[in-house]
Amino acid sequence: MIIDIHGHYTTEPQALHTFRDKQLAGLAEASRMPKDTNLGLSDEQLVQSVQPQLKLQRDRGSDLTIFSPRASGMGHHVGTEAVGKVWCQVSNDLIHRICTLLPDNFAPVGQLPQTPGAPIENVLPELKRLHELGFVGVNLNPDPSGGYWKSPPLTDRYWYPIYEKLVEYQMPAMIHVTGSCNPAVHFTGAHYINGDTTAFMQLLQGNLFKDFPQLRFVIPHGGGAVPFHWGRYRGIAQDMGKPLLEEHLLNNVFFDTCVYHYPGIELMTKVVPIDNILFASELLGAVKGIDPRTGHHYDDTRRYIDQVKALSDEDRYKIYEGNARRIYPRLDRMLAARGKPGRRMEAVA
Amino acid sequence: MIIDIHGHYTTEPQALHTFRDKQLAGLAEASRMPKDTNLGLSDEQLVQSVQPQLKLQRDRGSDLTIFSPRASGMGHHVGTEAVGKVWCQVSNDLIHRICTLLPDNFAPVGQLPQTPGAPIENVLPELKRLHELGFVGVNLNPDPSGGYWKSPPLTDRYWYPIYEKLVEYQMPAMIHVTGSCNPAVHFTGAHYINGDTTAFMQLLQGNLFKDFPQLRFVIPHGGGAVPFHWGRYRGIAQDMGKPLLEEHLLNNVFFDTCVYHYPGIELMTKVVPIDNILFASELLGAVKGIDPRTGHHYDDTRRYIDQVKALSDEDRYKIYEGNARRIYPRLDRMLAARGKPGRRMEAVA
Repeated sequence: MIIDIHGHYTTEPQALHTFRDKQLAGLAEASRMPKDTNLGLSDEQLVQSVQPQLKLQRDRGSDLTIFSPRASGMGHHVGTEAVGKVWCQVSNDLIHRICTLLPDNFAPVGQLPQTPGAPIENVLPELKRLHELGFVGVNLNPDPSGGYWKSPPLTDRYWYPIYEKLVEYQMPAMIHVTGSCNPAVHFTGAHYINGDTTAFMQLLQGNLFKDFPQLRFVIPHGGGAVPFHWGRYRGIAQDMGKPLLEEHLLNNVFFDTCVYHYPGIELMTKVVPIDNILFASELLGAVKGIDPRTGHHYDDTRRYIDQVKALSDEDRYKIYEGNARRIYPRLDRMLAARGKPGRRMEAVA
Repeated sequence: MIIDIHGHYTTEPQALHTFRDKQLAGLAEASRMPKDTNLGLSDEQLVQSVQPQLKLQRDRGSDLTIFSPRASGMGHHVGTEAVGKVWCQVSNDLIHRICTLLPDNFAPVGQLPQTPGAPIENVLPELKRLHELGFVGVNLNPDPSGGYWKSPPLTDRYWYPIYEKLVEYQMPAMIHVTGSCNPAVHFTGAHYINGDTTAFMQLLQGNLFKDFPQLRFVIPHGGGAVPFHWGRYRGIAQDMGKPLLEEHLLNNVFFDTCVYHYPGIELMTKVVPIDNILFASELLGAVKGIDPRTGHHYDDTRRYIDQVKALSDEDRYKIYEGNARRIYPRLDRMLAARGKPGRRMEAVA
């Protein structure tokens, strides 16, 4: 099977946007704050809302998408912590419902009610709830200030309480920023990519995984600039007296394949170990168009991977399925319980 | 000849550091502020200080380095504007002296006395001085706040006064941040690369080169994440209704080859037009070590370019020399005046 580990619910029904508008209007005029978190959406409406994703799964031959709320919609820098908690819960509940309605197509990943400057402990109740609801991972924002980088680096003890729980729950975190409120920094074209690069460098500078050997991070968008500058990062680690990247970071840090052209994907497969690459497309849609040079959608990343001739069948299995099962153990167990074990289990059977 | 367009004076004599210490001490206790900007350095001391660079030129077979003050040393976020102006002048004067002493080896690029929040007009006197001294370009910092991105994007009219002068003076700007005072953002491993990516995206969003068709920017470090995500940027431009990148940006935006492994350089040459790639190594030394996989220095970027078999002789000429002469017309004229014209002029002769 083919697992796309990075999809966002970007086709939300208007009712969700209306709810958010009312919430934010409520900051200015309290009477406008919605009292009810029930959006009145039927199961049919939710299933209808993800038809574009289902069509792309069929068209492109992927089976299951790891599905989380719209990344730019998390808006950790917007409003108050109280408003953020409700927003987070409402957003996650929709993901949960969709994944429950369509369990063969979607597996849930949640957002967290992070607030700039607030203790990270404040997100733990929602994380516990996500764990109980069967979410297989979370999106963790290294910069809840939205483009101003006001939080301590990911290696700081500030973050340790959530890492303890992520390890206990066997839930990996995708390191994903939200929208940018910094006019110098475009969201999908700069902030997302910078977030990936910055997070990797923070991890390189520290020794976080000595304290949390079981913690797993997925860095999206192909790892930002990292694979393109792989020599730079290997060299900086060496200058800093760190172990080789393989030993220092790559048991814990993984990259997705949201890189929208063949040469980028080819480079990834050349420099990043195959065990650290997970198939993803970021549907829908940081980039929506069709590449006139190929006649295919930029974000149809499966085409690029299929073109890399140097990959063995085993490599492809890992990128498309095996690594996802390993990094998201709750997903693997969920699939196995539904009679869809991974290859190693098949070999035993 | 081989022109390395990105070298920094990172082997400064101790006297320069001592001067800076006194300057910054003077912020706390006025009596410590140095009254004299004469560092007491002899020509011999300056020539001695760049022996490491000269040795690398010989060892690696490059001829001339476009040479500017240490990038992280610019420190636009450090101290007051008055202190920054003196610091800038002292730093540029050393570059000027070295390039005058060793004109066959170095051509001068200057730093600017930018200050967060100050009008960009305030740097124009120093820019005029650099022009009169024969500098061939400048480093322009898109984020003088040092990692917090508090300036308007490069497309904002805030920057127009300097663009007018850069065009008039025929001086290109390398878009180069300085050190980071943001603990979340490492300088060479995150801020530099993010600076490149962010600047490119700012330019993509705007239409700056409609107003300044003669303005030329060099984005260092291979363009940050840009070539690796070339499909993403092509797709975002398309979604925004912008022209093709070639037409929209590539008459004015160029990338250097400070990418420290072969696959990265190979990717650049596949996706970025050859006319937009300029040879550079960033000596010395964002990355100082020897790659144990190759036995050569990570930053010996010439080796990577030489390995790209798909490049024609003409391509190599452009990357190593021709593009630099085109983008830095003052350098080309300086070389021609010394009896070293470019290939096209040779063909005429």
